Amino acid sequence: MIWKAPFAAVVAAFLAMLPSNAAQAEDGYDLWLRHAPLEGEALDALTVRPLAVVSDQAGNATVDIALAELRAGLSNMTGRAVATAAEPGATLIALDCDHPQIADGGAFSLNGSSNGLTVYAFEPLGCLYGAYALLRDLAQGTPLGEIGYSDAPAMPLRMLNHWDNPDGHVERGYAGRSIFDWWHLPERLDQRMIDYARANASIGINGVVVNNVNARAFMLEPRYIVKLARLADAWRPYGIRVYLSARFSAPRDIGGLPTADPLDPAVRAWWKAKADEIYAAIPDFGGFLVKANSEGQPGPQDYGRTHADGANMMAEALGDRGTVIWRAFVYSEFDDTDRHAQAYAEFVPLDGQFAPNVIVQVKNGAIDFQPREPFHPMFGAMPNTRLMLEAQITKEYLGFASHLAFLAPMWEEVLEADTGHGATVAEVVAPVGMAGVANTGSDRNWSGSDFDQANWYAFGRLAWDPSLSSETIAREWAAQTFSRAPAFLDSVVPMMLGSREAVVDYMTPLGLAHLMDTGHHYGPAPWVCDLERPEWNPCYYHRADAHGIGFDRTERGTHALAQYAPSVAAQWADPATTDPIWLLWFHRVSWDHPMPSGRSLWAELVHRYDSGVAAVDAMAATWADLAPYVDAQRHRAVTENLAIQANEARWWRDASLAYWQSVNGRELPAGTPSPAHALDYYRSLTFPEAPGN
Amino acid sequence: MIWKAPFAAVVAAFLAMLPSNAAQAEDGYDLWLRHAPLEGEALDALTVRPLAVVSDQAGNATVDIALAELRAGLSNMTGRAVATAAEPGATLIALDCDHPQIADGGAFSLNGSSNGLTVYAFEPLGCLYGAYALLRDLAQGTPLGEIGYSDAPAMPLRMLNHWDNPDGHVERGYAGRSIFDWWHLPERLDQRMIDYARANASIGINGVVVNNVNARAFMLEPRYIVKLARLADAWRPYGIRVYLSARFSAPRDIGGLPTADPLDPAVRAWWKAKADEIYAAIPDFGGFLVKANSEGQPGPQDYGRTHADGANMMAEALGDRGTVIWRAFVYSEFDDTDRHAQAYAEFVPLDGQFAPNVIVQVKNGAIDFQPREPFHPMFGAMPNTRLMLEAQITKEYLGFASHLAFLAPMWEEVLEADTGHGATVAEVVAPVGMAGVANTGSDRNWSGSDFDQANWYAFGRLAWDPSLSSETIAREWAAQTFSRAPAFLDSVVPMMLGSREAVVDYMTPLGLAHLMDTGHHYGPAPWVCDLERPEWNPCYYHRADAHGIGFDRTERGTHALAQYAPSVAAQWADPATTDPIWLLWFHRVSWDHPMPSGRSLWAELVHRYDSGVAAVDAMAATWADLAPYVDAQRHRAVTENLAIQANEARWWRDASLAYWQSVNGRELPAGTPSPAHALDYYRSLTFPEAPGN
Repeated sequence: MIWKAPFAAVVAAFLAMLPSNAAQAEDGYDLWLRHAPLEGEALDALTVRPLAVVSDQAGNATVDIALAELRAGLSNMTGRAVATAAEPGATLIALDCDHPQIADGGAFSLNGSSNGLTVYAFEPLGCLYGAYALLRDLAQGTPLGEIGYSDAPAMPLRMLNHWDNPDGHVERGYAGRSIFDWWHLPERLDQRMIDYARANASIGINGVVVNNVNARAFMLEPRYIVKLARLADAWRPYGIRVYLSARFSAPRDIGGLPTADPLDPAVRAWWKAKADEIYAAIPDFGGFLVKANSEGQPGPQDYGRTHADGANMMAEALGDRGTVIWRAFVYSEFDDTDRHAQAYAEFVPLDGQFAPNVIVQVKNGAIDFQPREPFHPMFGAMPNTRLMLEAQITKEYLGFASHLAFLAPMWEEVLEADTGHGATVAEVVAPVGMAGVANTGSDRNWSGSDFDQANWYAFGRLAWDPSLSSETIAREWAAQTFSRAPAFLDSVVPMMLGSREAVVDYMTPLGLAHLMDTGHHYGPAPWVCDLERPEWNPCYYHRADAHGIGFDRTERGTHALAQYAPSVAAQWADPATTDPIWLLWFHRVSWDHPMPSGRSLWAELVHRYDSGVAAVDAMAATWADLAPYVDAQRHRAVTENLAIQANEARWWRDASLAYWQSVNGRELPAGTPSPAHALDYYRSLTFPEAPGN
Repeated sequence: MIWKAPFAAVVAAFLAMLPSNAAQAEDGYDLWLRHAPLEGEALDALTVRPLAVVSDQAGNATVDIALAELRAGLSNMTGRAVATAAEPGATLIALDCDHPQIADGGAFSLNGSSNGLTVYAFEPLGCLYGAYALLRDLAQGTPLGEIGYSDAPAMPLRMLNHWDNPDGHVERGYAGRSIFDWWHLPERLDQRMIDYARANASIGINGVVVNNVNARAFMLEPRYIVKLARLADAWRPYGIRVYLSARFSAPRDIGGLPTADPLDPAVRAWWKAKADEIYAAIPDFGGFLVKANSEGQPGPQDYGRTHADGANMMAEALGDRGTVIWRAFVYSEFDDTDRHAQAYAEFVPLDGQFAPNVIVQVKNGAIDFQPREPFHPMFGAMPNTRLMLEAQITKEYLGFASHLAFLAPMWEEVLEADTGHGATVAEVVAPVGMAGVANTGSDRNWSGSDFDQANWYAFGRLAWDPSLSSETIAREWAAQTFSRAPAFLDSVVPMMLGSREAVVDYMTPLGLAHLMDTGHHYGPAPWVCDLERPEWNPCYYHRADAHGIGFDRTERGTHALAQYAPSVAAQWADPATTDPIWLLWFHRVSWDHPMPSGRSLWAELVHRYDSGVAAVDAMAATWADLAPYVDAQRHRAVTENLAIQANEARWWRDASLAYWQSVNGRELPAGTPSPAHALDYYRSLTFPEAPGN
């Protein structure tokens, strides 16, 4: 039996007596919305008088959710019942959700007064966001009287993209099966769909693409539209619009047409009719996300048309009701130029040709969600096109769910990057939005690990406000999720902030990329050189031989650098002015190349691998010390993940070094331990059941 | 935050005030182990004095679990702390776990006294079973003073078979992904593996085959043995031994041998070495489950050897350390005789040839887990072979997880069947055991629906005691899972008891079978007649044409009836003496065949379909009335499932009738509604993403 306990202090004292195997421990399902009991000044501020939460707009579905969240959250944090009507002498939390001086789009203002606090907003959704913000502040231990500020989302679109297939498999999913139970919709709406909407709304997510960009056309059929409509109805009060990934060839696949040519009148009519059918069921349907002419997906180029032809045709079908989000992640099976340069080459010439309700969605870097990539050269290069940033929350290339890697620093790095076109990446995409490839699944903790919840949280927070620091986000999240004890936070936050750099170090240091094993991307395989397409091979990316290593993208190489603004390209054109973190991304250098550290490139590479391994060991030690602050079940789960990560960090280091040594014939620097096994051992490992493939 | 609340009454009163969307409602994770707060006499009996739970054998891992379960369960039921040491004046629950007068194998005795109750057992596992039995009684509201009896398992092996693949897919799974997280083992042991063991132990399950009978050989490799060892370590205190499905061709697949011939010395040595390797890691490893020479799986017949040759070779490798469980579910790709007769024909001649540590595992019926099948003719026909019953808990052929069908009556039907060889099926298998194909998955409610938990529960209870009535089991389960209110139980128990018959009626009435759609077995497809193998086709099973319907297994037909004992065969040889529930299973009769009801066969068939649909509507009405007794989240989940079932029952009825009418050209009886659509509509439906395939 699972109860929501109001008398938390008493319960907590009792819990300590129960044998751990029988007590229902925390399993992470509640995410950052635990609203754990307060103490001290924060508790006193809420309990000195009776509490009441009220709104004149009660009855509106969204306002009712805000009221319910505040009442439940405050009850949990204070251990007291919360009144639903104002009473004399009470601390009053009021929602004023049609305040004309607040902007629309979800803005709110939290205004404290002598007898409580009022959330002002122009519309119910602003009140809901304000309620979640207030709970966030309180859950961190901020006394009520100290809360007072206004906030508004920086970007209009704050989306999750789910690479979830209708059969429940999640491409690049490491948290179990899909959370979407299409099979039982529309009759059955799993409670998880409500809890999911709640979690998203609490961090400002306002759009969800429910299916994989590698889309099945049958999800556009009537039997799926009724399913989608029930989801849309459930999510509407949370301010979340549904979007569908649409397969470009759907008119052929399910429409009975001989072609999907975007200029064919019958094709245009089919999409128009399909859009009308969807809008009849879902008046606020968000629109279509399209992966076209990439990795074998159909697209307008199959008919000699451009991306703009394809996107505009679908945009016309939607009209002013919705948006086409067209992915720029394209690389052709037939193009042997540097993959880094293909998206820019295909899209930048189309700048200005896209319809107003088309957005081009660009990954943070030009390759594919690597542990570190320089920002994509398209950002800033298409001033007359609406560009949106695509980030990956699920850790396809960062160790899956069992490696602790807090991704906010990675996203902060790209958002803050100066494009050289007069704006940072954040400034380029702010008028449009951000999309994150979700990391949710059927695991009870949603994300496959407790710390991966932080990446979902961080994505939402950054899409709401890209100026938030990674440290702020980490602290917010950890305080709500685990413990607000300062000693805990002072230890866990730095651990989180350094965790992604550790992954870079033990997997792909100094600008290396895409050295993961084929297909599933699990583990190291820098030795793979014989796959059919050149850009499928790790060798394509590292280009190591006896003389040196790295991908020359300067004018002496593929000249992909020329796609960046001149100021940026100039800095990265010379190894001497290139930050070592990007060195092998843009340059091919000798193993003896002198690094700023004074080491040779080879010695520096070894040093970085060792640093990554050491950082994981340090995380494990830090976490062990934090046991007093965390419930046993979640503490053990994280501990066991860190054991996996420690093993795999060594595996990455050892396998990579064994391979580089086989290529360069060099000894390791004195005092450096040899790989645990010979190269053949690492090459022999196979993982046919690796998840997410 | 999820708390285990001791002050249940107070909490419950408070919960009612919380908005339902914010309170953490019950999600079914706790199964029948909720231990909900008691009331009235049952509560008084436990609270009149302080409670203490003690054992001299504390420190033993199994005894500690028993103590912890009792303390936590009693705390939850009473809302009071439970002392861990005897104190004067306390009600004492004591565990005496080395009592010489109790049998081994898990037996226990609950003996009340003036100051409490003592659980006596010969060994810790008996105490654990006794503790769960005591909690079961208390959770049903039985006052402590009225509890006193002895119990012991009727069968030595009470097993679950998981058809779970290492990649997380569950063959015939309708509850999400596999609960086994092989990917993260051995480092990470999900809490669910403990909670799973706990649930199993509470109903007496003592063996688990962790992987699909369609096995991947790589699960025998060292990297999986360490994973399995961690599971075995975790489950050992719960009295659960682990077993592996073993692929017969493993010596070739992963062993580097050119053959898997069971008489080849190198093959025999390979299995012996493999067994030794496993036992070095898991001293109490249970053994191998083998699906051989069936549905494309490799087996000894590939080398001209018999099932006995294959099984005995593996049994020799295990020695007295473990057991080979050899499945009798065989049907050949090359044998065109009645599939019904194949297993008997292959196995009965081998009676007496199997090694002592070989068990032959026989499905309840001769076809394949249909909604209703007569008992398998092998039961009773192999007196010199250890036979075990295989039942299917997951509802492959009974509507998946969204149809409410309580399976205890189905299993009771087969267990009670008189084989004609001097024993019932229960008596034949009692010296050996029962296996159930599990219905677990990653869904938060474990089984895909709340009521499917009852089938897991019922399987365990019947394996412990096959003389338990379905009604007793349903009442036990519903009281623990939902509510012990008599008005609730008096309504829900009859609903459960009739639910499986409803499925028979709307899917396969009067002895029809295997009319489900191809592959996934979702929905009706009696029209499928063109698949390559005859026995893959529904037409093979129903044999309907303008003249009649049914499969003639008498001497005028395939004479499969001859495999039954004479007394049984004689009864079923004549339509007049055959119960109508088996009629079309054994006989082909005219559409005008007179039935005991006075109706013609055709009219009776229509009547049964309509009865099935009506029964589902009645279940929905009953459940709607039970809302006051069930928490909102679970009540809504069941309601929505019943809506699916009502739709699909009509679909089955309408599609089946439309097809039979196309075959027999007959009108429906007067007053009977026509199918909602024409036959072509039903034939056009496709479900490429149907689960479990």
